[in-house]
Amino acid sequence: MINIGIFGAKGRMGKQIKECLEEENNAKIAMLYDKGDNINELFKKSEVIIDFSSPKGTYELLNHARTNSKPLVIGTTGLDLKTMNLMHELSAIMPIFYATNMSLGVAVLNYLVSKASAMLENFDIEITEMHHRYKKDAPSGTAMTLAQSAAKARNLDLEKVRVSSRDGIINERNKNEIAIMSLRGGDIVGRHTIGFYENGEFLELSHVATSRTTFAKGAIKVAIWLQKQNPKLYSINDFLGI
Amino acid sequence: MINIGIFGAKGRMGKQIKECLEEENNAKIAMLYDKGDNINELFKKSEVIIDFSSPKGTYELLNHARTNSKPLVIGTTGLDLKTMNLMHELSAIMPIFYATNMSLGVAVLNYLVSKASAMLENFDIEITEMHHRYKKDAPSGTAMTLAQSAAKARNLDLEKVRVSSRDGIINERNKNEIAIMSLRGGDIVGRHTIGFYENGEFLELSHVATSRTTFAKGAIKVAIWLQKQNPKLYSINDFLGI
Amino acid sequence: MINIGIFGAKGRMGKQIKECLEEENNAKIAMLYDKGDNINELFKKSEVIIDFSSPKGTYELLNHARTNSKPLVIGTTGLDLKTMNLMHELSAIMPIFYATNMSLGVAVLNYLVSKASAMLENFDIEITEMHHRYKKDAPSGTAMTLAQSAAKARNLDLEKVRVSSRDGIINERNKNEIAIMSLRGGDIVGRHTIGFYENGEFLELSHVATSRTTFAKGAIKVAIWLQKQNPKLYSINDFLGI
Amino acid sequence: MINIGIFGAKGRMGKQIKECLEEENNAKIAMLYDKGDNINELFKKSEVIIDFSSPKGTYELLNHARTNSKPLVIGTTGLDLKTMNLMHELSAIMPIFYATNMSLGVAVLNYLVSKASAMLENFDIEITEMHHRYKKDAPSGTAMTLAQSAAKARNLDLEKVRVSSRDGIINERNKNEIAIMSLRGGDIVGRHTIGFYENGEFLELSHVATSRTTFAKGAIKVAIWLQKQNPKLYSINDFLGI
Repeated sequence: MINIGIFGAKGRMGKQIKECLEEENNAKIAMLYDKGDNINELFKKSEVIIDFSSPKGTYELLNHARTNSKPLVIGTTGLDLKTMNLMHELSAIMPIFYATNMSLGVAVLNYLVSKASAMLENFDIEITEMHHRYKKDAPSGTAMTLAQSAAKARNLDLEKVRVSSRDGIINERNKNEIAIMSLRGGDIVGRHTIGFYENGEFLELSHVATSRTTFAKGAIKVAIWLQKQNPKLYSINDFLGI
Repeated sequence: MINIGIFGAKGRMGKQIKECLEEENNAKIAMLYDKGDNINELFKKSEVIIDFSSPKGTYELLNHARTNSKPLVIGTTGLDLKTMNLMHELSAIMPIFYATNMSLGVAVLNYLVSKASAMLENFDIEITEMHHRYKKDAPSGTAMTLAQSAAKARNLDLEKVRVSSRDGIINERNKNEIAIMSLRGGDIVGRHTIGFYENGEFLELSHVATSRTTFAKGAIKVAIWLQKQNPKLYSINDFLGI
Repeated sequence: MINIGIFGAKGRMGKQIKECLEEENNAKIAMLYDKGDNINELFKKSEVIIDFSSPKGTYELLNHARTNSKPLVIGTTGLDLKTMNLMHELSAIMPIFYATNMSLGVAVLNYLVSKASAMLENFDIEITEMHHRYKKDAPSGTAMTLAQSAAKARNLDLEKVRVSSRDGIINERNKNEIAIMSLRGGDIVGRHTIGFYENGEFLELSHVATSRTTFAKGAIKVAIWLQKQNPKLYSINDFLGI
Repeated sequence: MINIGIFGAKGRMGKQIKECLEEENNAKIAMLYDKGDNINELFKKSEVIIDFSSPKGTYELLNHARTNSKPLVIGTTGLDLKTMNLMHELSAIMPIFYATNMSLGVAVLNYLVSKASAMLENFDIEITEMHHRYKKDAPSGTAMTLAQSAAKARNLDLEKVRVSSRDGIINERNKNEIAIMSLRGGDIVGRHTIGFYENGEFLELSHVATSRTTFAKGAIKVAIWLQKQNPKLYSINDFLGI
């Protein structure tokens, strides 16, 4: 049972991590920390600290860690250069994991897409993503990341080959084009499919999020793993052994 | 073993029907008829005649049938009013089947979509269609037909609610919108999926054509069935008992 | 405010119904009953009883209802013939609602399957169902219901045509057989696909539950409705007016 | 022009290879061999032999090859241990290519499965495969290969963890079990899906063959390549340089 401290416990992600930790068998909550609480206590009680706070909060956390070495899982987005530099510096004396997307499944899919895109160079690539009816932008950030991985593996510039609509006389498909089609409806958490199509055969690789707590669970798994690692700045690919 | 005559035997569909009849156990080729051949012989040798010719050809066929009653399966597109009227007139004395799409599966899917659209009135509707890389237009005629059935069941005007792209800030989904997204790649013969999405659950109904001979096989099945029917003008729904 | 008793309150579904009832405006919890509790008290306090227990539990509930008439909503799967007969017998004196799946989408899918099975009589039927890793029985009640609808539409006896495994030398597929293959993994709430396969084309109709509370909420709606009905054995189609 | 002999020429695959060879510019048919023909003549006339026969047939072919060294492309599925051992033994004196599926897409899928299985070690693995109604054995050789790759990446013994049926009280899923469920129907050439399921998310990787000649064309390409190789037992990865 590893003791995990949550830094930013009242935020949207902090709450989800709390709920997931309450049902976790290999880890438990060391302390729920939020602004105004005793940070010394957080470091004393925790074997690992998970941070989903704010750029400012993350800087304070790191600053405190200078003299209180502890494994840190950082998922806060929008960090400035000063904070990034401090993170790099401190990773010489403690293990620090940094990623803005903690879905292991998406990370693995992204890796597989990159491999498949290179190996199946004559196959046409098409992507569909589906999300709930309330999502206000398109395509999803994950779909763009997948498309970029696929394009990069073929030395293509996504900006030039991306297609978002086909309506009317479109003529034969251009070999290099990559469509990203966005579907919306119901309460779909997130569904991404990337297909590779050739004469005679095709492959389709899909990721489906079944719960909004996927990211929280990913962070906890990473934390359990990180607690046994040596000082270094880790990415999700290190966790996956890619 | 029913003897089937093919009217328009050298056309694209005529050739496919010929090939399929050669492997058929319940029917065989009575005669391959093309322009210049003896039409009396065609009527004498055939128990049913399948026509995939031209508007002009179909008119000649029907005109000849005035005095040579025979079950007719007509799949020619673009018939004019005079020909349609003649077809109606002759259906009083012989069974005539007329349809421009002889895929039984698509006809059934269309029927199911109409039912589901009415029953699931709060569910969001989204359609995807996929075809081979050489298809020059979008969306497919079948996707449009499915969308029209779905819209009609909810008293919606498809022209007003159809969406073909989502890119950038799109805001929350409008309850009535129906997206038709077109994918292209490889040698996909034809794949259509219509989904109905609500909070808590969704349905997806798909049709996949696995062979370009699907239409030809449909026409042969209809012909075998038609040979036992009474004089009337039949549609694919009659064949399906809908 | 209708008082609803939960029979099997500590089971997965029982807990969900409890949680949903706590947020419900038109109904409240009469009693949470589990093995060892006083069943007389349950019948006294409840205006309707919702049962998601075990085949044995349902039999005991019905047996007790012989002398304690109360509207019953029964969602337990895997009931044996004796229990089914008792349910039929008791529905002469009290309203009983029986369904192995309380979602609108599943009811509609079942209706579509029945139609498609009859219309596509030469198409091979195959069913797959997937549920979370903790589900202890197979196939799911919903899969059995779908299979029965498909079989009935073709005058087939499901007991004779059902297949649950293909391993080794199986020989060519028997035209009438209907496979139900059960997959288990992750936290899948419920996913059912029924396919109809012919030379040249196939249809696949799927239902996916995206939230466990869909069924609990459905059961509560049914209970509120059932409380006002006359004695009879009701199905979800009665509730939906299909 | 390489002379290729076809062993099992009257089988489904044998016929396809014959048709593809008739349109091939770099190879031609040396002899169409079937049961009862002169096997000495086959070995004399052929520079390479492609075998899609039966487990028994393959054993006879290999047995004859003991004293008649020739490059062999073997695609027969369901080989027993004795035959596999003989193949290994003979590969010391002649190049032998063995694969139960000769498509680029399947080879890539197999590679991706191996990677994903290792990276997603807590995810449950489930496999479905679907083929046409005439396929006489189950599961498909490709499904077994995919399962073996997935199992090997986790140091599991497939024989011990494979499941082919779930019916009745099955209890909670064992973490290590890998189900391979076989569906049959219509004219499906070959469809394989391997899924990885966890709480909160899942991945599904699919391969679909859209034409039967994909495998025949693959086998011919391999045969032309194999004819120039040194004695060794080759897999599709060797051919693809993965």
